[in-house]
Amino acid sequence: MHTITPIEGGVCAPKGFFADGIAAGLKPNGAKDMAFIYADTPCDTAAVFTANRFQAAPIKHFQKHDITRTNFVLINAKNANAMTGEAGIADIEEILHHAQTLFPAIENPVMSSTGVIGVRLPKAKLTAGLERFDLHAKNPDAAAEAIMTTDSYPKQVAFEVTLQGGRSFRIGAMAKGAGMINPAMATMLCFITTDAAVAQARIKPLLQQAARTTFNAVSVDGDTSTNDTVMLLANGASGAYEEEAFFDALKRLMHELALKIVADGEGASKCVAFEVTGAADEAEAEICAKALSNSLLVKTALYGEDPNWGRIASTVGASGVTCDPATLTITFGNVTVYDKGEILFDEETEKRAAEVMKRNAFAIRCHLGVGEGAFTAYGCDLGHEYVKINADYRT
Amino acid sequence: MHTITPIEGGVCAPKGFFADGIAAGLKPNGAKDMAFIYADTPCDTAAVFTANRFQAAPIKHFQKHDITRTNFVLINAKNANAMTGEAGIADIEEILHHAQTLFPAIENPVMSSTGVIGVRLPKAKLTAGLERFDLHAKNPDAAAEAIMTTDSYPKQVAFEVTLQGGRSFRIGAMAKGAGMINPAMATMLCFITTDAAVAQARIKPLLQQAARTTFNAVSVDGDTSTNDTVMLLANGASGAYEEEAFFDALKRLMHELALKIVADGEGASKCVAFEVTGAADEAEAEICAKALSNSLLVKTALYGEDPNWGRIASTVGASGVTCDPATLTITFGNVTVYDKGEILFDEETEKRAAEVMKRNAFAIRCHLGVGEGAFTAYGCDLGHEYVKINADYRT
Repeated sequence: MHTITPIEGGVCAPKGFFADGIAAGLKPNGAKDMAFIYADTPCDTAAVFTANRFQAAPIKHFQKHDITRTNFVLINAKNANAMTGEAGIADIEEILHHAQTLFPAIENPVMSSTGVIGVRLPKAKLTAGLERFDLHAKNPDAAAEAIMTTDSYPKQVAFEVTLQGGRSFRIGAMAKGAGMINPAMATMLCFITTDAAVAQARIKPLLQQAARTTFNAVSVDGDTSTNDTVMLLANGASGAYEEEAFFDALKRLMHELALKIVADGEGASKCVAFEVTGAADEAEAEICAKALSNSLLVKTALYGEDPNWGRIASTVGASGVTCDPATLTITFGNVTVYDKGEILFDEETEKRAAEVMKRNAFAIRCHLGVGEGAFTAYGCDLGHEYVKINADYRT
Repeated sequence: MHTITPIEGGVCAPKGFFADGIAAGLKPNGAKDMAFIYADTPCDTAAVFTANRFQAAPIKHFQKHDITRTNFVLINAKNANAMTGEAGIADIEEILHHAQTLFPAIENPVMSSTGVIGVRLPKAKLTAGLERFDLHAKNPDAAAEAIMTTDSYPKQVAFEVTLQGGRSFRIGAMAKGAGMINPAMATMLCFITTDAAVAQARIKPLLQQAARTTFNAVSVDGDTSTNDTVMLLANGASGAYEEEAFFDALKRLMHELALKIVADGEGASKCVAFEVTGAADEAEAEICAKALSNSLLVKTALYGEDPNWGRIASTVGASGVTCDPATLTITFGNVTVYDKGEILFDEETEKRAAEVMKRNAFAIRCHLGVGEGAFTAYGCDLGHEYVKINADYRT
């Protein structure tokens, strides 16, 4: 058996990885807005990207060069470099060419961006920023801060994984989320580093599999961005690997980051697990759970801390999955309010359900009673802060 | 050719129809909350209902009795009689039986409800209310007011349709909408009366066809309620009919009511037409237009009067339809901001687009440039009022 221990250090926790973040002048308030991850040896690399058909220029650049190895990732906030066409890709080539001129050890550099759509990158600011980078800096906190947009705090996780027999490897990550989060990985960037000796061919399948129940199960607003990226760099420096342990750690790391993203959803005050069980199959459970986590009426009821179970029932019915009022059970935390046709919502029950809804994190459980399918989606409430943030985002 | 002239009178405009609304004590503030429509001869009747799998008791009651003729519709607000099982249907039977005892002229009475889900109807209040009804009252305004929930004003439309040769018929309607409105007719009730001599067999197909581009094309929050109903009662009293003219008037009436519902969406300040053209086919145009009208990021940008065309583009891309940045054109009103790969969003253009967004009603046009499919969906902005209304709805 392996053990997984949380450690400090984010993307710099694994051996041989460096990172830093600086203020390059993209954010008008002077905050950090440009980061890098560097490894002193080439890393096997893979990424999973947004399902949006208008993938941003950095994604197209990655795919154009068919990247499977790199040791340098440049990341900027405040500008998504999306809907910028061929010119947007050329901008990346130019910036990364400049990086290679400055730092000859860089191989197959890639870029990742988040921010406003439809504006060309401020190339001069970014190339000037590159010149201030020290590739051997180990400032993961600064990097995690620099990639934030409307996030209210940086998001990092790292683990030391000890295998049976005592060998160990590390895995670390930073992510940004906040708005435009949805079941298909909306404007969410996540960079994972590891010194585990994972084979190149296994990186992408493991990333995809882990994404399904982690990043692809969380929702802030149901919108899918043009830039979502989860990228993993593996340098093999630990010499240790065991797939079960690695996948376990990867899933746990992505799950923790996904929950951090939901909890820090724009204006969100609660993280709610929508646990659907007893669905006809897993696919229907997923549809139903995501319908709940995305429903505006459910999200505003969460904000109002109102155990309005009728909206839960209505959303289940509207999701189109196989269901029946006579087999449905709805539970807030451990308080069952509707059980197979019976309304248990008396004054006492309502009070207990309302208590559950005052918590920062809790589960709303729907047992459909028609099969064995199960899926848990994670969502947050929608309040005035969300409106405020998104009505004024560009300004 | 026929002519269609707007007239007063709502559901009482056609010959032989009566309606009224009273305060029966369901709304705690003493507002009107119970209404009826009555006709002095039996009417051919049909209805289209919500796609929600948990259809409310009044819908099940209608279907159970396979209603094709009625002359009495009882409507209440504040209680949806949904998720109430067999008991909810029995409550309706009991209330309507009482109505028939009071008014022997009533045949096959039906009921329609809107309000909170999961609470049994207050039968005593409703039967007491029935006793105060005067079936020959003609107070369409009172009826339209009584069916409101979070609507801020009553919604009525009526037309006189004059056929070639001078014969004429009338069609009138009242509706309630406000929240929980979505492409599948969320908590929206609409009652249409006509003295046109339309054949029973034609009512439902015409209603369904007209719903697709009217009620089913509008969205306030993407949630589908358990109670949505569009019902048409035709008494044939005018003796006149011509299908083309009737369908024309029906569509126009439903379109006008649909737009009233969007414009009065919870907290909405704008009604926006999302016109998608050049899609691969009509189905893809509809998917794309509805994705735009339902996107939280688009809706909050509307609220902020921010011509954030990147969110429009991103939502088109995320909708999953066939599209390409190189063939897409995005226009706010008449201001094109993105044209087939070219970003036209300079300071002057942004200013003009921002002017468009200050209007109460305007169009956002996306030409996908990949085919001939077209569809227009109607949506509204989402602001603080929506959050306020929905966080506190039950209380």
